[in-house]
Amino acid sequence: MDIIANLVEALRCLPGVGPKSAQRMVFHLLQHSRDRGLRLAACLEIVMRDVVQCVSCNNYTLHHVCDLCTQIDRNDAIVCVVENPLDVMAIEQSHSYNGKYYVLMGKISPIDGIGPSDLGLPKLLERVMTSPVQEVILALNPSVEGQTTMHYIQELLKHTKVSITQLAHGIPIGGDLVLLDAMTIGRALKKREIIDFVD
Amino acid sequence: MDIIANLVEALRCLPGVGPKSAQRMVFHLLQHSRDRGLRLAACLEIVMRDVVQCVSCNNYTLHHVCDLCTQIDRNDAIVCVVENPLDVMAIEQSHSYNGKYYVLMGKISPIDGIGPSDLGLPKLLERVMTSPVQEVILALNPSVEGQTTMHYIQELLKHTKVSITQLAHGIPIGGDLVLLDAMTIGRALKKREIIDFVD
Repeated sequence: MDIIANLVEALRCLPGVGPKSAQRMVFHLLQHSRDRGLRLAACLEIVMRDVVQCVSCNNYTLHHVCDLCTQIDRNDAIVCVVENPLDVMAIEQSHSYNGKYYVLMGKISPIDGIGPSDLGLPKLLERVMTSPVQEVILALNPSVEGQTTMHYIQELLKHTKVSITQLAHGIPIGGDLVLLDAMTIGRALKKREIIDFVD
Repeated sequence: MDIIANLVEALRCLPGVGPKSAQRMVFHLLQHSRDRGLRLAACLEIVMRDVVQCVSCNNYTLHHVCDLCTQIDRNDAIVCVVENPLDVMAIEQSHSYNGKYYVLMGKISPIDGIGPSDLGLPKLLERVMTSPVQEVILALNPSVEGQTTMHYIQELLKHTKVSITQLAHGIPIGGDLVLLDAMTIGRALKKREIIDFVD
């Protein structure tokens, strides 16, 4: 059983997986889906071994420059700045954006020793200065560190000619007023819109 | 990003892992623990490809007969019958048992089409008849199917000379009376023990 105990231990590198759930995973795979387990092993090996960061946007990719940066039908004039590759995936899944991305891979956090240069912010400035960027969308999450990072980027880009925007705040679609915070409701009231049934 | 999307999808073969937690797992591994991810891939491949069932006790193993069955210092006269390999692990971790095991890999469940022969119960009877077994411990979980299976095994072994036992019921150590069901408390009261401070 040593090799099984090793696998149980190895599964614990996955966030949120404790000893009991790791055991359950191993025996579920052995009993019901060995093929899918083998496929997972193969995918995992390729990703862990071969994935690098795109030299242009920092996102994960198998190539020197990622697919999103090389797609010629995407709008070069807009750059959406996000915290991490999960945000890129979330925005892509909305099918509502056709510009480029810049992935910070974190946010400014002095307590963790993460400063502007760790996030490649000088590279972002260079990109804005040397390419035909007209708009930078700051799509960071509104945590304290996210806000700090957005303010820093605003200062950084102040003297360039790009317009700096952020995602609209408001009630999430399907959101329940009772469960929402007062600040979001206040903001949604202030920015209320005339109902347009064509929309 | 296709290869990353493939890995996210592949991770969903693990029980309890949805699309969002799979994404989080992939980016956690890429950012923080590629080595552990590679090790997981290697372990997973070996287990999925090479693990078989022990011909003697049905437990998972890399060999024809498993380590627990071949250990010469274990007591051949006691066989502990359990539902699945996780139960073997749990009992081994208690360091309180030195006999052999028999793993049913399930329990009798007519609704799922699982009958006595699917659980290798004829093989258990043969083992009891042909080897020096003196005691069979029924360590199945007390669900309806578990109880049914235990009754079936009791009937099956009635005419052999083995004694059939079950694990003691009672209050779990550290258990909170308020959170326990009435049946357990009733049983624990009925079977109350004189306090023995030497224990």
